[in-house]
Amino acid sequence: MARTEIKIGGFGGQGVILSGYIVGRAASIFDKKYATMIQAFGPEARGSSCSAGIIVADEPVAYPYLTGPNLMVLMSQEAYTKFTPELVKGGTLITEEELVNPTNLRKDITHYSIPATRIAEELGKKMVLNIVMMGFTTAVTKVVKKEAMAEAVKMSVPKGTEELNLNAFERGYAYGIELLKKKPVAMN
Amino acid sequence: MARTEIKIGGFGGQGVILSGYIVGRAASIFDKKYATMIQAFGPEARGSSCSAGIIVADEPVAYPYLTGPNLMVLMSQEAYTKFTPELVKGGTLITEEELVNPTNLRKDITHYSIPATRIAEELGKKMVLNIVMMGFTTAVTKVVKKEAMAEAVKMSVPKGTEELNLNAFERGYAYGIELLKKKPVAMN
Repeated sequence: MARTEIKIGGFGGQGVILSGYIVGRAASIFDKKYATMIQAFGPEARGSSCSAGIIVADEPVAYPYLTGPNLMVLMSQEAYTKFTPELVKGGTLITEEELVNPTNLRKDITHYSIPATRIAEELGKKMVLNIVMMGFTTAVTKVVKKEAMAEAVKMSVPKGTEELNLNAFERGYAYGIELLKKKPVAMN
Repeated sequence: MARTEIKIGGFGGQGVILSGYIVGRAASIFDKKYATMIQAFGPEARGSSCSAGIIVADEPVAYPYLTGPNLMVLMSQEAYTKFTPELVKGGTLITEEELVNPTNLRKDITHYSIPATRIAEELGKKMVLNIVMMGFTTAVTKVVKKEAMAEAVKMSVPKGTEELNLNAFERGYAYGIELLKKKPVAMN
């Protein structure tokens, strides 16, 4: 049974949870896949860190906790420091270029980064940086189909912001496609 | 082991997931409780419905799926129709007054409603209706402490919107306190 484990991390207010929700929804829209998203809060949940664990599978997910994440999308330095040790060998790490300085980058993973904040600002709304990240992630990984992700974005963002968010998604996606031309996948 | 199961439901874009996230975070901030939030997406996840399942417990949550929700916060008619049959006997149902018409309301539960959309509009931002709902929920139930919820709101909303959201929370809370004076708790 195919099972992809995805961790998205960043600050509160960056749209981490909405991003995870979109991935989960996308997986189930066109692909007839199942997905779960989970957050676990313990006494350590103070502070500004925020993360979501998403599992995409061919069958309903009985155990929704992540056991070995193979894809991480990280939008803060704290998330980078905290989560990258958990990424499985050969996994894919995606970071926001201005918010994460990939110090001591692991050699056994594939790393991509995108200036999503800058792109979001060019679109006039810094808030959509998470959707830029999702477009980029869709381009450089094959976890969910582009059309499914775009539909899930449209369905999940506040009414009236669909066009802005779809633009953000397309900009991130285009950046990923360009990057792949320059930097072919090194691992896997 | 005390375990509270909460279901929040509504449209995509209403802030359902953020609301759940705030409850989960609040539970863990002051109370040293544990919480999980889960969404399960299957092939039926098309459409505009959106829900989150939150569990608040005294110990880490091994099984994060809801088995018998005792509190529901619903912001759409579809969510009302779909989820209320699952509410346990004696449970508490909270609805948005203009968005949910409580047809065939169950007699074995306690029901509260609030015109959260109108209150949010009075504050100038319809978007904060979910936070109004959370303030109201905090007042009429005792799942998490008011201070913990307020702190979790502040930590979880986008930067620059903290004051607006705290106002929304206070307005919902005040409405709940007033309502309790008029309508004492009937069940439990």
